[in-house]
This record gives sequence, structure tokens and C-alpha cells, in this order.
Amino acid sequence: LKVFSLNSNPDLAEEIVEHIGVPMGKCSVVRFSDGEIQINIEESIRGCDVYVIQSTCAPVNENIMELLIMVDALKRASAKTINIVLPYYGYARQDRKARSREPITAKLVANLLEVAGVTRLITLDLHASQIQGFFDIPVDQLMGVPTLAKHFEEKNLDDIVVVSPDHGGVTRARKLAERLKAPIAIIDKRRPRPNVAEVMNIVGNIEGKTAIIIDDIIDTAGTITLAANALIENGAKEVFACCTHPVLSGPAIERIDNSKIKELAITNTIPLPDEKRIDKISQLSVAPLLGEAI
Amino acid sequence: LKVFSLNSNPDLAEEIVEHIGVPMGKCSVVRFSDGEIQINIEESIRGCDVYVIQSTCAPVNENIMELLIMVDALKRASAKTINIVLPYYGYARQDRKARSREPITAKLVANLLEVAGVTRLITLDLHASQIQGFFDIPVDQLMGVPTLAKHFEEKNLDDIVVVSPDHGGVTRARKLAERLKAPIAIIDKRRPRPNVAEVMNIVGNIEGKTAIIIDDIIDTAGTITLAANALIENGAKEVFACCTHPVLSGPAIERIDNSKIKELAITNTIPLPDEKRIDKISQLSVAPLLGEAI
Ligand SMILES: Nc1ncnc2c1ncn2[C@@H]1O[C@H](COP(=O)(O)O)[C@@H](O)[C@H]1O
Ligand SMILES: Nc1ncnc2c1ncn2[C@@H]1O[C@H](COP(=O)(O)O)[C@@H](O)[C@H]1O
Repeated sequence: LKVFSLNSNPDLAEEIVEHIGVPMGKCSVVRFSDGEIQINIEESIRGCDVYVIQSTCAPVNENIMELLIMVDALKRASAKTINIVLPYYGYARQDRKARSREPITAKLVANLLEVAGVTRLITLDLHASQIQGFFDIPVDQLMGVPTLAKHFEEKNLDDIVVVSPDHGGVTRARKLAERLKAPIAIIDKRRPRPNVAEVMNIVGNIEGKTAIIIDDIIDTAGTITLAANALIENGAKEVFACCTHPVLSGPAIERIDNSKIKELAITNTIPLPDEKRIDKISQLSVAPLLGEAI
Repeated sequence: LKVFSLNSNPDLAEEIVEHIGVPMGKCSVVRFSDGEIQINIEESIRGCDVYVIQSTCAPVNENIMELLIMVDALKRASAKTINIVLPYYGYARQDRKARSREPITAKLVANLLEVAGVTRLITLDLHASQIQGFFDIPVDQLMGVPTLAKHFEEKNLDDIVVVSPDHGGVTRARKLAERLKAPIAIIDKRRPRPNVAEVMNIVGNIEGKTAIIIDDIIDTAGTITLAANALIENGAKEVFACCTHPVLSGPAIERIDNSKIKELAITNTIPLPDEKRIDKISQLSVAPLLGEAI
């Protein structure tokens, strides 16, 4: 068993190898003068079960190419199995043709990983579970809900309602609700353009309750902050939010800071840079979860 | 027939469509807030022979992913054939395992392009002709030599010798020499003992002659500027240089400006940004050549 980390999420990778109790595999991932990626694997991996930890978060194209080149090198160095741990699977939101002449990037990435030589994928909360079927190799999809649920259980909140910010997230909200023994509500929203969200109305009883909104990805935070404000306007006592993948691009941090959200719980599938650390955000680690899976 | 350009080399693409006399295909290639590439093909291409022009120069990983996503979208929009025009093929220099546990990126890129759905590749001066065999689709490899030769013919230089900066480039040098009806010379770099600087031995007669050094890629320009200075020291009258692919990264421009090279002729397979335009550099267009091939 050998575990390697690439450049996207070194802190999580470090935590994972500590959890498993193996040393971090030695490799150097640097750039040639012209920006091409140069990878040197600095220990023999012939006949080994190799794990590579990489989140395909921003800079997504760099991180994908790093991963593909690493997998190519491992394959040519006669690794027995090449298992990639993708805590966050980038390009997952283009997972179907919503309009004509669109790519399906989630499938393209699956094809790229397979052709490079990946033999197994471990990931967390795919944007759509169907993405598992884009692969012909085993895909283990772990869930962020238990980690997030534990965090809220420890807060001993009263009279909770778990809220899904859209219809697509109801299954996830129900899982959290079961763990917290709470009912659910759904926000019925329409999205006019990508990265722009619009809140419509609330299905379910939220009055006087402590609402916990759950989503898989928070990107520009438009959806979640409008949802939070709508919940308060409609009588919720207070609003918490949580997600597995904190993409947090563009205006996200400012929106969260200015919103009615009391606390946002996220995991570390995507690293949280210092400039995005605000008091409202609590980061939980998925290292134990991923460590168990390896 | 539909021709589309991506973001790496729009000026060359514009010249190519002008040469062929077709309008540029309409598509938008922009970014989502998190940096993921968003492509919209804005006209029907069902049943069409589609050409996509993209150089995989810096930022190489962005340019490769743009191309792969575009090809995926074209495939799903029922293009009849997907022909990609890669004036410059990035990652070509890792084309064999020089040491153990190295990737072969030139083959990886070939695999990625094929799995995305490319049906034919048109390119110029691959770093090694063997890369053609990395593909199972037709590969048309064009040559920069005629374009470069024409430039030097028009100068009416006397007593020319064409110089290959290393053994790998001899075939290319001979092609230019034939066109210019000149002899060739070869620079033989040898390290006399470990940890002693390389010595540039010149094989062939260069004394009193006008030397023209030719290479496929000029990257940091270390090789070519040292070669030029060695030629002058060994009695060459003057030194010109030329290459197909002007990568020109890091110290390249400064080195060229400070070298004994009188003029460097390059093509536009890679765009030359304003800050790299110096008097010594002449840029020649391969648009007619690529236009003919389409
Ligand atoms: N990186 C991205 N950022 C924002 N929107 C995206 C991104 N990738 C895909 N989308 C859009 O998000 C929508 C899918 O989101 P969803 O309905 O939540 O599955 C599609 O309309 C996509 O065009
Ligand atoms: N982008 C790059 N920049 C500089 N050197 C590279 C690059 N890609 C590969 N190489 C190295 O260049 C050598 C191959 O060059 P060549 O002998 O001219 O074919 C190999 O040792 C590679 O490791």
C-alpha cells in the first residue's frame, strides 16, 4: 500500500496518511519552464496498490492534468492497482445535456481517468449519483452527511427542520433529517442563469424552527443565502447551513457573511484558504472517513 | 465544413478561415465562476465535418482541457468527423521513458484526444515523428521547413551552411539544406568528464560561412544561443536561427537578444505576445499551409 498526494489538497492528504498510519509516498510534482507538469515518483511502486489523493477543485484544469499525468506514470511503473481518492469531483455539474450542443464534462472526466489507467475511484457526494455509471471501474461514493450530522448533534439544537434548497437535494436532506430525527422542508426555486439563483416558496413547516439547510456544493452561495433569508422572512427562528464541498467562488464569502446564516458547516474536501476563513464557517474533516475507505 | 477556434491562437485561426474562405464557426468558450470551462456551440454542426483549431501551448493544461471539452460537445452534437488542428502539440517532449517511473505525456495526450472523440489530427513538426504512432486515428504531420526556407531564400544569402544544434535534428537540417542548396553541420555536445561544462564540437565546415541553425522548438533558448556563440567563435561569418515552435519561456527573449544570433525566424504555431516582440525576431505564418490541409 502506497499513498501519494498531489498539489490540490495536501493538508487533507497528510491527515489521511496519519489516520492510516503509513508514510506519505515520495514524489515531486513541479513545472517545466513552459508550464508543463513534470512528475517524478521517487520510490518504487512496482506491484503495489497505489492510492493518489487529489481534489479536482480550482485550479481545476491544472489539478485534473496533474492527476492524469501521475496515473500515467504509475501505470508505466507497473503499479498493481491505481486507486484515486477524489474528495471533490470537479466538472460534475455538467452531467447531462440540458441544452443541445453542450458537453457532458462529468462523463468526459470519467473517460479521461479511465484511459489514463485508474482502476478504482473513491469519492464523496457526487453531484449526481448517476456519475457512478459513467465509469466501468468500481466507484465508492462516501457521504458527507454523517460528518455533518455529528456536528449538529453535538450542538443539541431544539425543534430542527432540515431544508433542501432544491428538489434535487431532497434525498440528501432526508438522510440528514433521519440522523437528526427532524422533519424536512423544500425550497421551490428557479434558476434563471448559471451562478444566479432565485428563491420561490417554501414547502413544509418551518415557523419557529431551527432550520438547517444542506447542499452538496456551495459555489457562489447565491442559492443558500437567498434560501436562508427566505426562511427567516417566513418565520424560521434561526438558520444553519452545511455542505460537503465548499467551492466558495466569486462573491460567496461576502454573501455568507452578509446573510442570515448563523453558522455554515463545511468539510475539507476542498481546502479553505486563509482569506476565506470567517467566524461563521466551521470546517470538519473527512480524513477519518477517507482513511477508513483506503 | 465548419471551422472553430478556441482560445489559444485566435489570430492564426482567423487567418486560416480567411485563407479557406469560410466564416468562423460560432461558439463561446468562457468560464464559470469557479474556473470550470463552459462551452456553447452556437450553430448546428449535425452531420458536418468539423475542424477545431487550438495550439496546446501555455497555459497548456487550460488549452488541452478546452480542446477536450469542445471535442466532447461536438461528438454529442453529432458531428460527422472531428478534425483537430494542433499547430503546436504540447507535452510532446516527454515522448519516451528516459528514466524509470516517468510518464509518457505525449502518449497520454494522444489517448485523451482519442477518448474525447477526435477522428483526425492535423499538426506541424511533432517533436518526434514516432508520436504519430501513438494514435489510432489518421495524423497529418505538416512541415515548417518550406515556410522557413522561403524566408531565407528571399534574403539571397551567400555561402550558407545549415546547422543542426543536436543529433536528433539532423533530418530537419538536411531538409532545409536541400531547399537552400547548402551543406550541413552538426553541433556535437559532449561532457568531457562528469561535472565539467559541455564542449560544443562542430562537425562540418562553417568557417567564413553564413550559418542557419534550425530546431523544432525553441523553449528557454539555451541550446540555440550557446550554439550560435560557438559558431561565431569557430569562425562563422554570421548566424541566423529558425524554428517552427516558438515556446520562448523563461529567459528565452533575453538570451536571444544578448546572443550572436543576427535574426531568428519563427512561425505562428504559438502566438508571440507583444512583450516578446524584439527586432531580431521575424514571425512567418503557417496559415496558408494549414489552410491547404483543411
Ligand atoms: N462550474 C459550474 N458553475 C456553475 N454552474 C455550472 C457549472 N457547471 C455546470 N453548471 C450548470 O449548472 C447546472 C446544473 O446544476 P444542477 O441543476 O444543480 O445539477 C447546469 O445548467 C450547468 O450548466
Ligand atoms: N516541457 C518541457 N520543458 C523542458 N524539458 C522537457 C519538457 N518536457 C520534457 N522535457 C525533457 O526534455 C527531454 C527530451 O528532450 P529531447 O531529448 O530533445 O527529446 C527529456 O529529458 C524530458 O524530460
